[in-house]
Amino acid sequence: MGEKRQGVTRRQVIVGAGALSMGAVTLRSAKAESAVQWDHETDILVVGSGVGAATAAITAHGNGDKVLVLEKAPITGGTSAKSAGVLWIPDNFTLRAKGIEDRKEDCLKYMARFSYPETYNPADPHLGLASNEFELLEAFYDNASRTVDSLRTRGALNVAEWRMFFLDRPATDYLDNVPENKVPAGRAIGPLKEDGSMGGGGELMMQLNGAVKEREIPILTNHRAMKLIMNQAGRVIGVEADSGGSTVRVRARKAVIFGTGGYVHNPEFVSLYQPSRLWGSCAMPWITGDFINMAGAAGARMGIMSSAWRTQVVLEEALQSSKLGAGVFFPPGDSMVQVNRNGVRVVNENRNYNDRTAVHGAYDPSSAEFPNQLLFMIYDQRSAEAFAGVYPIPADPENTNHVLQGDSVAGLANKIDSRLSEITAQTGGLSLAPSFAGNLEKTFKRFNGFALSGKDEDFQRGEAAYDSEWHQVFSPMKPDSGWPANDGPSITMHPIREEGPYYAIILAAGALDTCGGPAIDASARVLDTRDQPIPGLYGAGNCIASPSREAYWGAGHTLGLSMTFGYIAANAAHNEPRDNA
Amino acid sequence: MGEKRQGVTRRQVIVGAGALSMGAVTLRSAKAESAVQWDHETDILVVGSGVGAATAAITAHGNGDKVLVLEKAPITGGTSAKSAGVLWIPDNFTLRAKGIEDRKEDCLKYMARFSYPETYNPADPHLGLASNEFELLEAFYDNASRTVDSLRTRGALNVAEWRMFFLDRPATDYLDNVPENKVPAGRAIGPLKEDGSMGGGGELMMQLNGAVKEREIPILTNHRAMKLIMNQAGRVIGVEADSGGSTVRVRARKAVIFGTGGYVHNPEFVSLYQPSRLWGSCAMPWITGDFINMAGAAGARMGIMSSAWRTQVVLEEALQSSKLGAGVFFPPGDSMVQVNRNGVRVVNENRNYNDRTAVHGAYDPSSAEFPNQLLFMIYDQRSAEAFAGVYPIPADPENTNHVLQGDSVAGLANKIDSRLSEITAQTGGLSLAPSFAGNLEKTFKRFNGFALSGKDEDFQRGEAAYDSEWHQVFSPMKPDSGWPANDGPSITMHPIREEGPYYAIILAAGALDTCGGPAIDASARVLDTRDQPIPGLYGAGNCIASPSREAYWGAGHTLGLSMTFGYIAANAAHNEPRDNA
Repeated sequence: MGEKRQGVTRRQVIVGAGALSMGAVTLRSAKAESAVQWDHETDILVVGSGVGAATAAITAHGNGDKVLVLEKAPITGGTSAKSAGVLWIPDNFTLRAKGIEDRKEDCLKYMARFSYPETYNPADPHLGLASNEFELLEAFYDNASRTVDSLRTRGALNVAEWRMFFLDRPATDYLDNVPENKVPAGRAIGPLKEDGSMGGGGELMMQLNGAVKEREIPILTNHRAMKLIMNQAGRVIGVEADSGGSTVRVRARKAVIFGTGGYVHNPEFVSLYQPSRLWGSCAMPWITGDFINMAGAAGARMGIMSSAWRTQVVLEEALQSSKLGAGVFFPPGDSMVQVNRNGVRVVNENRNYNDRTAVHGAYDPSSAEFPNQLLFMIYDQRSAEAFAGVYPIPADPENTNHVLQGDSVAGLANKIDSRLSEITAQTGGLSLAPSFAGNLEKTFKRFNGFALSGKDEDFQRGEAAYDSEWHQVFSPMKPDSGWPANDGPSITMHPIREEGPYYAIILAAGALDTCGGPAIDASARVLDTRDQPIPGLYGAGNCIASPSREAYWGAGHTLGLSMTFGYIAANAAHNEPRDNA
Repeated sequence: MGEKRQGVTRRQVIVGAGALSMGAVTLRSAKAESAVQWDHETDILVVGSGVGAATAAITAHGNGDKVLVLEKAPITGGTSAKSAGVLWIPDNFTLRAKGIEDRKEDCLKYMARFSYPETYNPADPHLGLASNEFELLEAFYDNASRTVDSLRTRGALNVAEWRMFFLDRPATDYLDNVPENKVPAGRAIGPLKEDGSMGGGGELMMQLNGAVKEREIPILTNHRAMKLIMNQAGRVIGVEADSGGSTVRVRARKAVIFGTGGYVHNPEFVSLYQPSRLWGSCAMPWITGDFINMAGAAGARMGIMSSAWRTQVVLEEALQSSKLGAGVFFPPGDSMVQVNRNGVRVVNENRNYNDRTAVHGAYDPSSAEFPNQLLFMIYDQRSAEAFAGVYPIPADPENTNHVLQGDSVAGLANKIDSRLSEITAQTGGLSLAPSFAGNLEKTFKRFNGFALSGKDEDFQRGEAAYDSEWHQVFSPMKPDSGWPANDGPSITMHPIREEGPYYAIILAAGALDTCGGPAIDASARVLDTRDQPIPGLYGAGNCIASPSREAYWGAGHTLGLSMTFGYIAANAAHNEPRDNA
């Protein structure tokens, strides 16, 4: 009888709730809970080891909680370690040191205006946002600078103002030219290397994960979280992980905090949720959105699943592998335009990568098609030589696979045409419109007029400080190219030469990562479909529905958000009741 | 001891799985299952009473299954009863009678081209679609005509070719002008009234729900399904409904089929899932997406949650109530354009409502805003009088609240400006760009050139047969207006007069209903997040992720799909094992 009871209990532990067992195990009784064979026990279990996760681990440890970290990959740092390492932190210590006031009221307006352009209403106490949307922005503002200060005080982070390389100025925000942005530059900070120079994402994560290790917080690499373990009351009390085929169960007496990535390298999810094609990403290859099924099985409500942090990518590279080294963050060249299959411009080529890339997904109701799936970055001999080596313009156009060349506009169009024919099986038959070459001639003429007048009447290229400043940062002209400097009225536009050769690079929509997933509240608690917190479950970073929706506020946007909500999560989780059963 | 056991068992029945209890009750043992107090028992439980639900009920009954219908509202018929009652059915009996071959291979290409413009590839065996996507299209083609024939044979439906009113021609599809559409007219059928004339949605649902009642299938109105009841094995075995505050539990020995609506009148879901604002809908007011939480709690995978069957709506009406009588399905007038806040045209005004309305959601990366949130339908005295009474042009412009009037372009712009100022709290501060009036003058000039040449170089208005034919159907010119007929080269375009007055109607994005929700397979089975069917759970109609994605293939698209998948669901459910426990 006793044996039979035990048998039943163990079965109850292992069998989940039917259809839901793929992401969560629900224990059926208090007995079942105590019968689980836990391999590890901790107060706060952190999943992931990027900037949000590491910040959560350090913060939780500082609060006196016992912490353990699970990392799916053999190495720590996630996509954060591959990034530029910049953190967008309003009202940060470097601004304060310079006496620049970044007031909450103003900063909230900037974030709300950029994230919710449709409903933004400065006259409304919540700026036109729903209360939970507004509270997430408030939580970010209130905690961002505090997070950085806390990590610095704890000796876990050494950062300074991030300056735009050649210009040596503080970084300009990604929507500097709206009246709501009262501090359009200087919110970006970055990690300082030991020699005092500015480091990147590798440096940032070396500092943070170094601090994790220094605190003797165990980091179990090669441990992939597979299921949440929930008790009878619906509280998340642990995680079941897979490590080389073995199941490892970790008990979290207070909470589980996910600081993992989006789903960008999960082709099934991309096809399910993205509204238009996404050809590649520079996120780490193991970023497959595992958290979505786990949280979904626990009843989480999903938010902005169709969103992503977008960037253009070089199609020829994406066709080789969707796991890319880098995106086309800023297209170089001044005698350069981007056109669609009809040979017409459709976007300000110098707009920030996240906003600019959105045009690839535009639907044309008149033709019932997506005419911007591919954009063709076209430039002349001047840009080919004067910006040689600035990605994606190659240092040597002869020895590269991603540049097409033609002696004339018609010749270039033919080259693009035949290349598109070769890859038709991979693109689903994308092609140029018959009007492409004719329209491209007209596009050159119109653009050259804009270059001479300094005014892009169609897409305002060069008007925002962002455009010209980041052009100089990302797209420096080679001083020794033999081509004259651009002394026209706009540094980002130079007339395209009337004679060839012309060059084309095919660009497609890609992403840094996706930014949809389970929704959180202002305490980083994962919400269920009734907007009630799922007890014991927290999230920060690309794995959750971004509190900024689809807007990319400035350099370091994703890391700044991840870090701050990792900090918020650890502090909120600290106040959870400790389960001593 | 016995008492205690019983107490525990009953508690297990009532308490769901923690966070999941809002939409599903999971029974914890076989004992619990038999202990449920069922108020009704049936083989197949159908939820909803629109076209998909009624078809499922009639089909299941014809298969010899015992059927019961739950309807949330006090009346039956759902939004289907309010619709035009048209059914888009490829290869239907009226086409066959005329000897018109609507071949599977061709029709699949049309549907795939329209629904998946990005990946459509005629050379691929699955036309570039994922297998499950392709199988859904196949299932629709294979069963659509069969469904209609089956209902006719059973005496449940009396339909005929649906003809375009004044033109008296078969209905032209919504994307007739692509080479993939080999049968561009004639796929629409509609219900015949007793007198032999064509009826609408009321007639359609009177026939179908009449057939349900004739078969003595119980229809419990005022019963709102609240939770799915699942057994230990994860099978859906019934539904818990609310009827006037009382809980009613219905056991379904074979399956539960949902044929309910989308979530268009659930403001929280609209704000969560729609990518841009949705101002109103002509769906029945109780259409709030109840199925989403229920299926979600059972582990269903959601599809295309951000989608909708879109139509423009009159803003002034939507501000009164988002529960609208009708949408602007086809804007009347020939000396008429639609422009955005910048005073420029952004779409073919005669494109079908679903595709046309998509432009309201277009994001402009250069300005980081949605410039088409509102479109202004602007027309002159000719269209005001010659098309008077064709919605939304009023019969009497003096006694209407939704038309603005100005003696000149500048005067009209001022009127629009002040009206927008009055409603700023409701719109979140939407306004005209300062360039509006100047650009509108240029827009008139350019459009008038197109009207004279018969060629809209920007948006191809009037080029597709759809444009000119539906213009004559929806937008007939009054023969006695005193204005000369349009004898220009394009019947849909007439030059706008150089003198005023001019009129404006403010249009915004609305929807017939949403079309995202739980995903189904080709047997109409609801899928979980691993794409495995949730046993016992079926769906058809606007409550599930549409098998056509966002495309609206032709008149009667939504009803044709709902009806067909209702039929598929009932037949597949017939083969479920009958639970005789």
